[in-house]
Amino acid sequence: MNRYRALVDQGLKELDWSTAQPAGLYAPMDYFMGLGGKRLRPALCLMACEMAGGEAESALPQALALEVFHNFTLLHDDVMDESPLRRGQPTVHLRYGLNAAILSGDALLIEAYRLMVQAKPELMPDLVKEFNRVALQVCQGQQMDMDFQNREEVSLSEYREMIGLKTAVLLGSSLKIGAMMGGASATDAQAMFRVGYLTGLAFQVQDDWLDVYGDPKRFGKQIAGDIKACKHNFLRVTAMQEATHEQMKHLISTFARLRTYLDQEKDEGDVQALEAQRQEWVDDTTGCYNEIGLKQKVQQYKAGLIQDARYALSRTGLNDAPLASDLMDYAEYLANRLE
Amino acid sequence: MNRYRALVDQGLKELDWSTAQPAGLYAPMDYFMGLGGKRLRPALCLMACEMAGGEAESALPQALALEVFHNFTLLHDDVMDESPLRRGQPTVHLRYGLNAAILSGDALLIEAYRLMVQAKPELMPDLVKEFNRVALQVCQGQQMDMDFQNREEVSLSEYREMIGLKTAVLLGSSLKIGAMMGGASATDAQAMFRVGYLTGLAFQVQDDWLDVYGDPKRFGKQIAGDIKACKHNFLRVTAMQEATHEQMKHLISTFARLRTYLDQEKDEGDVQALEAQRQEWVDDTTGCYNEIGLKQKVQQYKAGLIQDARYALSRTGLNDAPLASDLMDYAEYLANRLE
Repeated sequence: MNRYRALVDQGLKELDWSTAQPAGLYAPMDYFMGLGGKRLRPALCLMACEMAGGEAESALPQALALEVFHNFTLLHDDVMDESPLRRGQPTVHLRYGLNAAILSGDALLIEAYRLMVQAKPELMPDLVKEFNRVALQVCQGQQMDMDFQNREEVSLSEYREMIGLKTAVLLGSSLKIGAMMGGASATDAQAMFRVGYLTGLAFQVQDDWLDVYGDPKRFGKQIAGDIKACKHNFLRVTAMQEATHEQMKHLISTFARLRTYLDQEKDEGDVQALEAQRQEWVDDTTGCYNEIGLKQKVQQYKAGLIQDARYALSRTGLNDAPLASDLMDYAEYLANRLE
Repeated sequence: MNRYRALVDQGLKELDWSTAQPAGLYAPMDYFMGLGGKRLRPALCLMACEMAGGEAESALPQALALEVFHNFTLLHDDVMDESPLRRGQPTVHLRYGLNAAILSGDALLIEAYRLMVQAKPELMPDLVKEFNRVALQVCQGQQMDMDFQNREEVSLSEYREMIGLKTAVLLGSSLKIGAMMGGASATDAQAMFRVGYLTGLAFQVQDDWLDVYGDPKRFGKQIAGDIKACKHNFLRVTAMQEATHEQMKHLISTFARLRTYLDQEKDEGDVQALEAQRQEWVDDTTGCYNEIGLKQKVQQYKAGLIQDARYALSRTGLNDAPLASDLMDYAEYLANRLE
């Protein structure tokens, strides 16, 4: 993956918006793209291109398009979620203001399209069609995610649909678009979508797992952030599905209390006592998760997804490529990463 | 134009986002597109297609793309400008909230791309390239517009560049894309861009003129809104260019006072007196515009633009089309419209 990563970093460097005018538009784009990240989507795209028999370099514009698009979604999501930090640095709306965040995000989306269509004319219709579909689905996923925040309960299948749209389709498309650029057949490209989609689900499930069971030093986020924010993540929807009647009552009442805390006006004086109270509710919830045995259930769920991904890959003509086992190693890594 | 307008209205009706899910994403899109408007850009696109020898219907997806894109820019601009009303109705961020306004705007932009590429594969590369360029330029124009609001002075050429990007390129592209869809040569399509670009400048200049000299009942906006908001519009930048030394000093000091008013905290008690004071400054400014003879200067400037547009059209192979004079009549109408 390091080789792909180096290609991507080089390509991103060449985009260079640091001196483009008007600076009010381009400086936030440059800042945000420069915050780094795993560059997971473009790396997958380049790898899939090679697996299909192409040169990795030939899919570089599309790989960059996927990364720029991903950053567009993060930039606007940060506004919608009122996030103060992204990768440990101030988010664009805090650093440059709301208007810059909206407009620079828009420009990133347009840049993503510009990059995506840098391909042979005969590939362009399929590339644009694929990219349009995925881009709209990611918006649908973000809307579902926001809708869930006002819901009392979310089922596992609803949750899976949401993360499918918000996260997994873009990983699926990264592999599919790479495969298309490398000359894969439509059937193989679609199978690669499925490999990426299933891996993307596992990736998000692991993200949710790390929220409670991760090492904050390695994961880089505060522990139990989703519990504190009353988010219906994978742990919560699975816990609700697996809980006994008693456990369920307990989870629901604790969730309600945490939500009250969120909505509460907090005086300077009370804040420490309230904070201690909240920590108790968080510990309660985590204790309940432990009792239910979520660790093991998450492990099983991810293993099932990766197994399905492996099967999807085995059905393609790309399975014999020497890179196929590298891809599945990487999928395993993503599903089990600790950071 | 009524025939094109009917085609566009029918096409927009068929997009029908009223029942699409998730409703949190699609209802604001449906609401905003339903607020109406002149449908100017799609009508120009269809007309240009016919002028180039195509069937108007064949450019309908591109015409709709231009209208959907235009609405995307309006929706996000309303957030950035904190506008409460759009066509007399609540803006999306006031009616559905900030998050809906951001995300529904994003989805409109993606939908615009989806519609734009509904064309024969051989046309797609040029269509996408053209649309990407224009979309990015409109963002640049919006950024310049926002930058100008913090500036003491803006020159006429800077102002022309800004409205060129923010408004005129999209009108230019509407004609160009229509012409491309109708089978025009690259040279003719580019000349059509110029016709639309110059018409777009005149359109915006007239908009600025109506801010002071329009009939509020017909124009539908409050009179002198740009003066009150301390916007550097065409009237102001031209006045500053044409003013005597005395007039210039007067314009600058009144502008500074109006800006102070904008930034001021206003008590309930003072508001009427402050309002009366402000009206005096507005009247002062308008009086100064009258003295300078802006009405006539605006008339000359627009006439020059329309003459240039007419010349650009005369140089194309599309000049003999029976529709060419209809187009220029429409351009004249846009440059002199009272509503």
